[in-house]
Amino acid sequence: MCETTSSDARIRGPYHFGRSGEDHLSWELTLTVDRESHLPLATQICNSLRQLVESGTLWPGTRVPSSRRLALDTGVSRSVVVEAYEQLSAEGYLTTKRGSGTTISNRAQSDRDAASTLVPPDPEPHPEAMCDLRTGTSNIVDFPRQEWIRCVTAVVRGAGRQELSYSPLSGVPLTRRALTGYLGRVRGVRSSPENLMVTAGFAQGLALFCKALLDLGHTTLGVEDPGHPGEREFITSSGLRPVGIPVDDDGLRVDLLEESSVRAVLITPGNQFPTGVRLSQARRERLVAWAREVDGYVLEDDFDSAFLHRTDRLPALQSLAPDRVVYAGSASKTLAPALRLGWLAAPSELMASIEYVRAGWDIGCSGLEQLAFARFIDIGALDRHQRKLRTEFHRRRHVVRRQAEAWLPGAHLIGRDSGLQAYLHLPAHVDEQALVRAARRRSVLVRSGDFYTFTDTSRPPPW
Amino acid sequence: MCETTSSDARIRGPYHFGRSGEDHLSWELTLTVDRESHLPLATQICNSLRQLVESGTLWPGTRVPSSRRLALDTGVSRSVVVEAYEQLSAEGYLTTKRGSGTTISNRAQSDRDAASTLVPPDPEPHPEAMCDLRTGTSNIVDFPRQEWIRCVTAVVRGAGRQELSYSPLSGVPLTRRALTGYLGRVRGVRSSPENLMVTAGFAQGLALFCKALLDLGHTTLGVEDPGHPGEREFITSSGLRPVGIPVDDDGLRVDLLEESSVRAVLITPGNQFPTGVRLSQARRERLVAWAREVDGYVLEDDFDSAFLHRTDRLPALQSLAPDRVVYAGSASKTLAPALRLGWLAAPSELMASIEYVRAGWDIGCSGLEQLAFARFIDIGALDRHQRKLRTEFHRRRHVVRRQAEAWLPGAHLIGRDSGLQAYLHLPAHVDEQALVRAARRRSVLVRSGDFYTFTDTSRPPPW
Repeated sequence: MCETTSSDARIRGPYHFGRSGEDHLSWELTLTVDRESHLPLATQICNSLRQLVESGTLWPGTRVPSSRRLALDTGVSRSVVVEAYEQLSAEGYLTTKRGSGTTISNRAQSDRDAASTLVPPDPEPHPEAMCDLRTGTSNIVDFPRQEWIRCVTAVVRGAGRQELSYSPLSGVPLTRRALTGYLGRVRGVRSSPENLMVTAGFAQGLALFCKALLDLGHTTLGVEDPGHPGEREFITSSGLRPVGIPVDDDGLRVDLLEESSVRAVLITPGNQFPTGVRLSQARRERLVAWAREVDGYVLEDDFDSAFLHRTDRLPALQSLAPDRVVYAGSASKTLAPALRLGWLAAPSELMASIEYVRAGWDIGCSGLEQLAFARFIDIGALDRHQRKLRTEFHRRRHVVRRQAEAWLPGAHLIGRDSGLQAYLHLPAHVDEQALVRAARRRSVLVRSGDFYTFTDTSRPPPW
Repeated sequence: MCETTSSDARIRGPYHFGRSGEDHLSWELTLTVDRESHLPLATQICNSLRQLVESGTLWPGTRVPSSRRLALDTGVSRSVVVEAYEQLSAEGYLTTKRGSGTTISNRAQSDRDAASTLVPPDPEPHPEAMCDLRTGTSNIVDFPRQEWIRCVTAVVRGAGRQELSYSPLSGVPLTRRALTGYLGRVRGVRSSPENLMVTAGFAQGLALFCKALLDLGHTTLGVEDPGHPGEREFITSSGLRPVGIPVDDDGLRVDLLEESSVRAVLITPGNQFPTGVRLSQARRERLVAWAREVDGYVLEDDFDSAFLHRTDRLPALQSLAPDRVVYAGSASKTLAPALRLGWLAAPSELMASIEYVRAGWDIGCSGLEQLAFARFIDIGALDRHQRKLRTEFHRRRHVVRRQAEAWLPGAHLIGRDSGLQAYLHLPAHVDEQALVRAARRRSVLVRSGDFYTFTDTSRPPPW
């Protein structure tokens, strides 16, 4: 019983558990034994552990502490825990593998485990497809892993109390400054760190904008038709009714916007999604005049301007009227959607409403990732990466154009050879759905145009 | 003019810009020149850049491209850009430092820059204080930098298309599985990955819970008194009215809760904030019975149970009634608030309402940080780190107790010697405010008890 005594002696002292030398032993399991009970201690441990498994508290694959660790923590002899673990292994509750310790076995809860398969994130997975050209899945294979790791490492190493603590709701000041500088330099955005908010991706920016509009009495939001079906769903769930405004070769039909009753509009002026047309200079000016006339707002979704060729790029629409245009962007296309990093630049009074809304939702985004992103901008890595992607997307789009010209006579690719998307006008005699199905049979995934048109909102969002 | 020709030749070809060999040259600046204009090219560049600075588009400190890069991108001779940069430097718009390139100078916008100082995150900074014992600032100096960096590095290196893309609204499946396993093992939480949501910290979890309650027709939410003043503000901004329910030595007065009209309550049963009392076993059962009786919900804020000594820890209240108790926790106390990682385990039908609310707010938290956290759990680093902190907090609280006994005769420290906080009952003759002021003069920051009482809600939240 020497072992019991030594274990008990160690657990009795207040500071003698969890020292770094025992790191490999430090898994926790909350489990109590009752020394007053008539039941043997090993039986108590068996009963408790069985009950935790049966009640769904301990999940298959969950690591349990080593017998030595559990003995120390519960103040019983190690041999008691060994006896209990052996009994539970015999009953199939525990599995022990050399090198990976003891875990709750899969057999123990096979029914529940089978029922708990999570829905895969892609609603339409086609793992066998050779070529996935659907929107929303473009560039993430090129994620700059090494540079991102370097930025996170530098930020975490250098993080002091302030960097590790809560940051302002609107974002880490350093990041807002880096973004303000970047957006002014590359996109001509006229903003300041005070008018810029870091959001959980473009989606949260859009949701905040919608809620702020609702609070201002808006009930509708104009959207481009064709446009992003997922965004229409998202706007609806934010409480506004999306109203489709047609798009032609010069972009949004501002004349039809003027005839509608909406006082706010979401638009992709730099490279319309999905057609790839650009809002003409005349319409840019007319749109801004409209916003002032109706005392409304324009939300500029600048999702892929960084990928447009320099000669295809106009400064952000926001630069024409920082008092009426809210500029929104994100790192989803440039880096990865998984980062959930986005930003909004809004005029002061609207930003105050947006901050008010957000104060009821959360208290900001991850500070460490914001700081890593600021560093990524400040060392020039974002510029480098976007330049690389721009060249690559230019090349890809050029390939699409050549192939379309060669194999789809009469088809017509809209827009310039830069940016993320390619939108084909098919000749009248071509059955679009049949073409999409035929491509799929050849392992090429594309979307048909009506996926993006406004009339049909029954489809699930492509996110 | 050989240089012009070579630059033009290079920019004309579609794939000849932005190659990796020119990485150090790749800063971007959106700036156009008009070859049809009668103005010299250098003057055009000067005018554009000046205008971008004056309009507030280019911010002080913003990096501009090297003359070689800008020449390549705009298709002009390098000597033209050099001439323009020299002129702008002479005018004070640009600053060039060896090794750090050319930037927009601070002088250029000194007025605007001075006006743009962001509010520091801490509303009451006392950088001179020797000892900050105020709540909310405890353990972040111990952030496990190396282990976190290792987890992020492994995750980013191994991330494929799926990991870099959008993940389900409720969180990355791997992370929800890791959390379900961990919470069952350490806190006795009875949950499943389907009933668990990863949130942007506890704050977002609370906001989602409040909004889901509003949608179910609730107008009020019971809160502990004394309790967290910031949470009360947050609940108010979510649209519910917080109703204070007194706390005594056995925790929340469930009898007074029964007499109130509320049908939902936010509670810290494991270690009441800020008093450190624990909800008694009898009240735990009565509270759960109440929730069933009124068809209501209990939100269990389990903010510091990981730091309670094993013998001071009861299983989560949620384990008594997973159908009525929503379990909420976060990495803010264990790791760092900056991570904004939290979680909610809720019964299925309420989780459906919560997911519905969130679908209008954002589309999830950072996937890479979620995966890093899952790894942090799976390699046992969370258990190790919490064990280390628990020992340290135990030590600190012991020191507080000894000092209080020695220097504050008649004062009485509530609760057990574990957990994050220490709450002192002072003898009747002691002026609490005078004591707090005197401590501050000795460079020790503490809060007075009435900071946490419900009656006074005029103070700003301590976040």
